[in-house]
Amino acid sequence: MQTMNFKAIPTPKGPEESSDPGFGAVVSTASGRRLLNPDGSFNVRRDGLPWSEVVSLYHAALVAGWPLFLAWVAIIYVGINVVFTAAFALAGAGAIVGPASQSVDGLIARAFFLSVETFATIGYGNLAPQGLLANWIMTVESFVGILAQALITGLVFARFARPTAAVTFSRRAVVAPFKNGRALMMRMANRRKNELIELTATLSFSYVEQVGGESVRRYRPLPLDRAKVTFFPLAWTIVHPITPESPLWGLSPEQLEARDAEFLLLLSGIDDGFAATVHARTSYKAAEVVWDHKFTNIFNPAGDDGVLSMDISRLDEVQEAR
Amino acid sequence: MQTMNFKAIPTPKGPEESSDPGFGAVVSTASGRRLLNPDGSFNVRRDGLPWSEVVSLYHAALVAGWPLFLAWVAIIYVGINVVFTAAFALAGAGAIVGPASQSVDGLIARAFFLSVETFATIGYGNLAPQGLLANWIMTVESFVGILAQALITGLVFARFARPTAAVTFSRRAVVAPFKNGRALMMRMANRRKNELIELTATLSFSYVEQVGGESVRRYRPLPLDRAKVTFFPLAWTIVHPITPESPLWGLSPEQLEARDAEFLLLLSGIDDGFAATVHARTSYKAAEVVWDHKFTNIFNPAGDDGVLSMDISRLDEVQEAR
Amino acid sequence: MQTMNFKAIPTPKGPEESSDPGFGAVVSTASGRRLLNPDGSFNVRRDGLPWSEVVSLYHAALVAGWPLFLAWVAIIYVGINVVFTAAFALAGAGAIVGPASQSVDGLIARAFFLSVETFATIGYGNLAPQGLLANWIMTVESFVGILAQALITGLVFARFARPTAAVTFSRRAVVAPFKNGRALMMRMANRRKNELIELTATLSFSYVEQVGGESVRRYRPLPLDRAKVTFFPLAWTIVHPITPESPLWGLSPEQLEARDAEFLLLLSGIDDGFAATVHARTSYKAAEVVWDHKFTNIFNPAGDDGVLSMDISRLDEVQEAR
Amino acid sequence: MQTMNFKAIPTPKGPEESSDPGFGAVVSTASGRRLLNPDGSFNVRRDGLPWSEVVSLYHAALVAGWPLFLAWVAIIYVGINVVFTAAFALAGAGAIVGPASQSVDGLIARAFFLSVETFATIGYGNLAPQGLLANWIMTVESFVGILAQALITGLVFARFARPTAAVTFSRRAVVAPFKNGRALMMRMANRRKNELIELTATLSFSYVEQVGGESVRRYRPLPLDRAKVTFFPLAWTIVHPITPESPLWGLSPEQLEARDAEFLLLLSGIDDGFAATVHARTSYKAAEVVWDHKFTNIFNPAGDDGVLSMDISRLDEVQEAR
Repeated sequence: MQTMNFKAIPTPKGPEESSDPGFGAVVSTASGRRLLNPDGSFNVRRDGLPWSEVVSLYHAALVAGWPLFLAWVAIIYVGINVVFTAAFALAGAGAIVGPASQSVDGLIARAFFLSVETFATIGYGNLAPQGLLANWIMTVESFVGILAQALITGLVFARFARPTAAVTFSRRAVVAPFKNGRALMMRMANRRKNELIELTATLSFSYVEQVGGESVRRYRPLPLDRAKVTFFPLAWTIVHPITPESPLWGLSPEQLEARDAEFLLLLSGIDDGFAATVHARTSYKAAEVVWDHKFTNIFNPAGDDGVLSMDISRLDEVQEAR
Repeated sequence: MQTMNFKAIPTPKGPEESSDPGFGAVVSTASGRRLLNPDGSFNVRRDGLPWSEVVSLYHAALVAGWPLFLAWVAIIYVGINVVFTAAFALAGAGAIVGPASQSVDGLIARAFFLSVETFATIGYGNLAPQGLLANWIMTVESFVGILAQALITGLVFARFARPTAAVTFSRRAVVAPFKNGRALMMRMANRRKNELIELTATLSFSYVEQVGGESVRRYRPLPLDRAKVTFFPLAWTIVHPITPESPLWGLSPEQLEARDAEFLLLLSGIDDGFAATVHARTSYKAAEVVWDHKFTNIFNPAGDDGVLSMDISRLDEVQEAR
Repeated sequence: MQTMNFKAIPTPKGPEESSDPGFGAVVSTASGRRLLNPDGSFNVRRDGLPWSEVVSLYHAALVAGWPLFLAWVAIIYVGINVVFTAAFALAGAGAIVGPASQSVDGLIARAFFLSVETFATIGYGNLAPQGLLANWIMTVESFVGILAQALITGLVFARFARPTAAVTFSRRAVVAPFKNGRALMMRMANRRKNELIELTATLSFSYVEQVGGESVRRYRPLPLDRAKVTFFPLAWTIVHPITPESPLWGLSPEQLEARDAEFLLLLSGIDDGFAATVHARTSYKAAEVVWDHKFTNIFNPAGDDGVLSMDISRLDEVQEAR
Repeated sequence: MQTMNFKAIPTPKGPEESSDPGFGAVVSTASGRRLLNPDGSFNVRRDGLPWSEVVSLYHAALVAGWPLFLAWVAIIYVGINVVFTAAFALAGAGAIVGPASQSVDGLIARAFFLSVETFATIGYGNLAPQGLLANWIMTVESFVGILAQALITGLVFARFARPTAAVTFSRRAVVAPFKNGRALMMRMANRRKNELIELTATLSFSYVEQVGGESVRRYRPLPLDRAKVTFFPLAWTIVHPITPESPLWGLSPEQLEARDAEFLLLLSGIDDGFAATVHARTSYKAAEVVWDHKFTNIFNPAGDDGVLSMDISRLDEVQEAR
């Protein structure tokens, strides 16, 4: 889409060592696309997989929000009952007996409520299966009900037990003044009381280089002023000083865009509640870096209670700073 | 609150290297407040979060004691039944039929017990829904019942499966004689038979310094005489020798208080029962350090059975020692 | 089976250091057998274990496919009901009462459906136990039902919670041109969206040596051009350059076969969804190495959407390359 | 019990460095007792804990064998039903109605079966509660039933999900010939198909020393010929060569006994099935070391199937070897 003249753009400085995190040097001709989506997922696609593997219902059930998850369970609940409603109804009018077989109008309604009472194992007896066929349908439905309850319980717990890093990354990065120079900075906040500890951050710089007529994607590590913290009670600002040794030294915002630059930020830490190592990641394209701005202080002046606090809703706020 | 003259207080000695565990240099004007609560939680607050994230019911359900947890479950159980009681009652007197519809006095009572029998999937049939509306209410309640059972089971297991370090820290630290000098010591005990192994302890010294008119919080590591043990069968005393290289060398109790000192103790180990790495932490403010005292021996003299034992109830006991 | 003359085959070069991964130097007289099966399981057998330990139903229930697992659960469901059907039937015709005791023909059928309604806790009441004996049978069956539901739910969740590395290894390895020389290469693909991160690969070369008339199995590490990647979004090609320092230097395909060579490939990484370290492994016998071929490129040319994609179904494709 | 003259027994050689795994130097006057029980649990006792913490029902339910666990669940099942049987019976003869209220003889029997049908949520309706009091009892019992089902399911899964190292240690250690000298050896076998990988072993030598009239327990590391294996398909023999640098050099069996020697063996590895790090440990007292014997080979000669196999039942077999 963009026309690039790589010869005119300086190659980033720094060690030759690669820090390709695994994407490889394959470059799409359509530049401007990102490797990592802002939510940390990979911007890739798998072809040639059987349909059953492409659609992982389990994974989808794990990562869906609660309203969506509950809606799914409700749909499955209704769906199973619809199937057995049909079965009981096809077994004929005489297959459902009991005191309520007169009071509930319509065979379908009676079959549906018998199915619900069977699937949920209520069994008031106001409706009951009659005859071999109806009783076999009941037997199958009770088995399906046991399995369904086990699956729902298993999924609910898997959702509970799945540790996730409740980290919010600032939507933009800044290049701000830092110790007589400048530094590339990102900010992140811990949204949960459930503590994250022993955090490590790594930052990579990905850009496109012209090698013998072909576009090749390169990766360089960007050393951090501080790459590890023991606690992460509120917020942490990631700082890469743009020193003469930095691969970013001397590069302008325009040159970064022309190189299709992307900054990959990886975070790993320990979720103290689950005793599990969790990971979070995001990326910043060149256009998401605000130059000559700094992050606004979001720590509140201490009140009378002396408790350190911050305002997470202002995580993205920046202000000019030259 | 306290008036401090930092100039008059010697700056702690030792390496310039920072060991800020992530709290940052922000200092509240109200000194005397702690960074870490004695139970290891951070003394911080998040503002600007949506209400739904501030109150994490899941996290609360995980960390609550069993009596409180069971009380909550009971309240939810009653609450759901109250909702469906109202629904059945609003469906009218003819919506509940069955042998018991005469014997239980009052529509509300009948609706409540029908709800209980439906939610818990008992369904004696002494009460049963009648008509389309009542049967739809039953259908919804049975679905809610399936979900509730799954949620309760999931929560109960999440509580079981959550590894926690059953470590009790002594409420006070001591400065006691140690190898021709003195050392800062804390003591901790393993309360559970469920073994903790491969423990590592780190101790940080946090204090306030005056830099250009501003109060800045500093952090220094305090090296331990022994920072790692393979087993933790009963108790472990953490020892930081106050050598001339120690940041504490030459500081008096009063100077520590004036510097708003806080000692941060972090412990990590492996819970052998859950095969998970667990963490525990606590902190000691200057006022919680007892000078010229040592911890009383809590190991019992070996009885006839030859089993090594200790009295955990005496973990906090100190005695004078100069 | 094969006659080997080890004296005539050069001993692999390289460091004397062993990298026996734990199989030991015991060599079966039947050569050509593999240490690791292609699916990563060990090609070994344990004798002398009690029967109860040899057949681990739990492990089998964990690793079985879903259709097989569900079939087992169905068989157990039917089996338990058959046992209690027999019990109710042996209790006599008068032990089962209720409105349906006339409508369902045959004692066995009535006993079976009563058992189903009891085990699944439906209890319509169209069939009910009568007398002490039948009620005791009901009591035992309801207890078994509670346990069975707990076991099924536990197993279903254990299957969900079990992290597995969804990695497909190419079925063949290649010896392909690499940087003015040649290299041994294997390829693997990540089948799941559920990300695998921080992967490490190790490659060992196992071969048989003649020592004092005895066949001894040796193990040598094969250094990789790149042994670690941070991300594994799509595919990764493992490369061992056959330099003069390589144990493979100067060995022909025939010599590798005569030495009963086997290449053991181990992969470990972190499953980001489960926050757990997972492992995968496979091995390649000498006959599974294709010489002077390279893997076909399976990355798709970028379409209009700019998303990086590959065709997993072509993972095994090789083409001649000298 | 034994009279020891420490002065007459040479102090073990080797580095001064301590490898006290956390037991401390406290020594019981009754020698001959062990620090680690053969099953790996610590031979210690905690006093001063509240009763509720001493008896950890959860931990007991986790580690109990299946027959014991099921027996407990059955006892609790019966116990809860007995409590509610009493409650229903105390509510009076008119509190239980239904078709079966005539056929089952005795109020207690009717109350018990009503309780079972309520707790297990069967509710045939052949027995049903009548009146407010009985219906409230039913309400409470159904709540208890929901909780009990959740607890049982949670416990069953916790038992399933608990990774354990299925390692059998040889009951005796040997001092066997090794490379022109001798070595202390222990053997262990992997009982499960469920693979254990990346195993690390550490061996400590614990003995008693007389220091200024007091008995002090010392700990020394014993370096292993091989301390790490990647795979553990069948068996592994731990080897500590008794070189002149070994703390065991020159010590006789009698001297080890007089020093109250104990060898602590720790094993850690990764359970591939659960993706969890598991630990196993055991100890050998001086009397459990067989001198001048070696372990019998338990690997079977390869049969026609070429599969490597061993006979675990012969793990403890030793034979004379000088």
